[in-house]
Amino acid sequence: MTWRIPTLSLTLLAAGACYAADSPNLADQYRPVAGKLIDAALADTEGYNRLTWLCYRIGSRLSGSAALEKAIAWSAEQMKAAGLSNVRVIPAKVPHWERGGESGRMIAPLDKPLHMLGLGMSVGTPPGGITADVVAVSSFDELAKLGREKVQGKIVVYNEPYTGYGPTRMYRSSGASRAAALGAVAALVRSATPLAIEIPHTGEMSYDDNQPRIPAAAVSPEDAMMMARLYADGVPVKVHLEMGAHMEPDADSGDVIGEIPGREKPEEVVVIGGHIDSWDVGQGAQDDGASIMACLQALALMNKLGLQPRRTIRVAFWVNEENGGRGADPYRASVGDRLKGHVAAIEMDGGAEAPLGFGAGADQNSLEMLRQIGTLLERVGAGQIAGGGGGADIMPLVRDGVPGLSERTVGTHYFDWHHSEADTLDKVSPEDFRKNVAALAVMGYVLADMPGRLVSGGGGRRGQ
Amino acid sequence: MTWRIPTLSLTLLAAGACYAADSPNLADQYRPVAGKLIDAALADTEGYNRLTWLCYRIGSRLSGSAALEKAIAWSAEQMKAAGLSNVRVIPAKVPHWERGGESGRMIAPLDKPLHMLGLGMSVGTPPGGITADVVAVSSFDELAKLGREKVQGKIVVYNEPYTGYGPTRMYRSSGASRAAALGAVAALVRSATPLAIEIPHTGEMSYDDNQPRIPAAAVSPEDAMMMARLYADGVPVKVHLEMGAHMEPDADSGDVIGEIPGREKPEEVVVIGGHIDSWDVGQGAQDDGASIMACLQALALMNKLGLQPRRTIRVAFWVNEENGGRGADPYRASVGDRLKGHVAAIEMDGGAEAPLGFGAGADQNSLEMLRQIGTLLERVGAGQIAGGGGGADIMPLVRDGVPGLSERTVGTHYFDWHHSEADTLDKVSPEDFRKNVAALAVMGYVLADMPGRLVSGGGGRRGQ
Repeated sequence: MTWRIPTLSLTLLAAGACYAADSPNLADQYRPVAGKLIDAALADTEGYNRLTWLCYRIGSRLSGSAALEKAIAWSAEQMKAAGLSNVRVIPAKVPHWERGGESGRMIAPLDKPLHMLGLGMSVGTPPGGITADVVAVSSFDELAKLGREKVQGKIVVYNEPYTGYGPTRMYRSSGASRAAALGAVAALVRSATPLAIEIPHTGEMSYDDNQPRIPAAAVSPEDAMMMARLYADGVPVKVHLEMGAHMEPDADSGDVIGEIPGREKPEEVVVIGGHIDSWDVGQGAQDDGASIMACLQALALMNKLGLQPRRTIRVAFWVNEENGGRGADPYRASVGDRLKGHVAAIEMDGGAEAPLGFGAGADQNSLEMLRQIGTLLERVGAGQIAGGGGGADIMPLVRDGVPGLSERTVGTHYFDWHHSEADTLDKVSPEDFRKNVAALAVMGYVLADMPGRLVSGGGGRRGQ
Repeated sequence: MTWRIPTLSLTLLAAGACYAADSPNLADQYRPVAGKLIDAALADTEGYNRLTWLCYRIGSRLSGSAALEKAIAWSAEQMKAAGLSNVRVIPAKVPHWERGGESGRMIAPLDKPLHMLGLGMSVGTPPGGITADVVAVSSFDELAKLGREKVQGKIVVYNEPYTGYGPTRMYRSSGASRAAALGAVAALVRSATPLAIEIPHTGEMSYDDNQPRIPAAAVSPEDAMMMARLYADGVPVKVHLEMGAHMEPDADSGDVIGEIPGREKPEEVVVIGGHIDSWDVGQGAQDDGASIMACLQALALMNKLGLQPRRTIRVAFWVNEENGGRGADPYRASVGDRLKGHVAAIEMDGGAEAPLGFGAGADQNSLEMLRQIGTLLERVGAGQIAGGGGGADIMPLVRDGVPGLSERTVGTHYFDWHHSEADTLDKVSPEDFRKNVAALAVMGYVLADMPGRLVSGGGGRRGQ
């Protein structure tokens, strides 16, 4: 997943009728069908088999890659095989960043390889690479204190200790331009991960148009710590960096969608999904392959059980979440004026470890309804309903008033693997995967079938 | 560390006078001096600073490398700086294996890099590399069942799940020759580690002289699992492997020793140490840099405190433990007939996580004495005395009757890092390091000073 701070419309739509607090309890009403869905999910092997194919036969799928287009075509086939209707690809133009060849070495005070991984959207180095001394800082404040005199011509190493993904990722996002503003020639950013095990973690960076564009790469926590310690000890640290990263012309791609049409109100829609693209390392298993396969399987099981909800339930595999976010708007545009029919948007983009429940951007009455549904999920540990509810791919919907939910998990190891070579199939426990399918199936089905509708609480503002 | 199964002499020497069970309790006797040593160790920063230099200024130090010789010269200087006497290098000829350039790719069913690391002492591939289909097994039994018909011309992948270092390392040691016996052209071995995080772990392998020598490399657990799953599903898996590994002529190297001469019986010796060489990845921090720096610091603190034990206490940095074991015999040879004066040999080669105590190859009476000393170490959590006590570098001493001890730690993460790029300074907690120094200082001092001597229990047999 990528985290972005969206610009939000503060206009909230009163989205349909509010569900009265004295209506029959949703948990009582849906307990039998929830039981069937959970039983089916916990016995399911098809979903994990699909995930296995995605990871082992298609692999990583960066925007612009042949593998992504293969994944899109295969996904449409899988939706059809699961009996979904109106399977189609909503066209999207996506940025095409190519990593190219890359390597880094520390050449003083000793010669050793750097465990580096170019940041997504970075420029490359000039031919022959860049060789420069390092300055190391642990914050933007420290960088500012060094000033242009000490930074000019240097490679800036950001050695911000990991205190959570949110606080540390800003060095990845804007570290290059902040360093370039003081004359740096490249930026190396400590990977945003709690686990120091000599693997680097990539992610999206962006450039300030007012600054020179300098190459930026993640380094392992160990390499960042080592360079920072040597620099602090006054030992000159010299690095050689070569990166072939560059942009190719935008590529044709798209969001894959399919649905179970509503039996009474097909024009009303619960959309549920994640993103189909991944970084070009690992297999995009936790981020976000497991999510899209779990969402698809939730619908597949409804079909197998002959469950057709009152409203349409739609699965969406959004494209280009990782480096551009160019899949979210085409989906929003495809909905057009029919947005009022979107009763809820559920995004899953935090991995498929054991599910805890859902974050929701909904008003108090709606949260109470969600808590009633949550009680149905206690059997799989996924009964918690909290605030939040945003997500990069549903943001254009949430911004325009659609109640947004995000599936939440324990997240114990997610950032150990995230955006690295280690995001591979084996990290997804089949048991946890099935619990996620159960949680998504029950939440999606009840939201698509219940008499009332959620009301947005402006969740987009909270859900970044 | 490397584990070897030694051929043992079963002749045990009655090594000096036995300590009578009704003698004054060693704990009471040495409590004041132990308290001083522990206080000093827990306040010490010099030892960890030395380790920092070894890791960050010298780095990995494979036998035959310039870095190893630099480490040896620097270590001798450090011993002198710590006030040790008779600092010298005992010459040893060590094998010189060079990794050369290496890479691996899966080229079918999809194209992806393999996370591989050649095994130490492996031959390389022919120029241009090896391209072949894979057969995957999880045991030697499975390999035998496949037989020559299915193995001939293939690359054998050993996907033995990790159940502990002992049971899994045999695939690394002898997997290549077992595969070659059936006509395989290369062997890829799942890394012997409990942590699947897409890093490979190297280690020593050896060839059966009766079989063709084929290249052997470790792969990450993830790559092994992926290839095994695809193979089990009947999907042809093709791999391309290039390895420049080869042997150079044996190199001149040596064991570094230094000592505090005994104040009453300088001819009697407690030797305490670990190995100075490491693999050519990571920094050899836990394996075994922290150990040798902790042993040195134990003696350095005795000197600082003006503590000169009755007998000589000697620190030894043995060379070439990892790929040849050619440092152990030269030390033994240098002792010659004076072996009877060796009252104990302590090896530390299991990392420097929080210490638990010592394994000892000693008779029951001696174990009781050690338990008395152990009570002095409870303050740093290191009071446990167990059986065992061997170690590759003290094996020639233990085999000839010297009571052997091995320092033991909790070992929580040791095999996450062992023999991989991730064995770096940051893995050694300064606090745990200091506790190890305390444990070594107290055990070493008391053994060198106490009136009686330990008697070997044939610990070599138990201590592999």
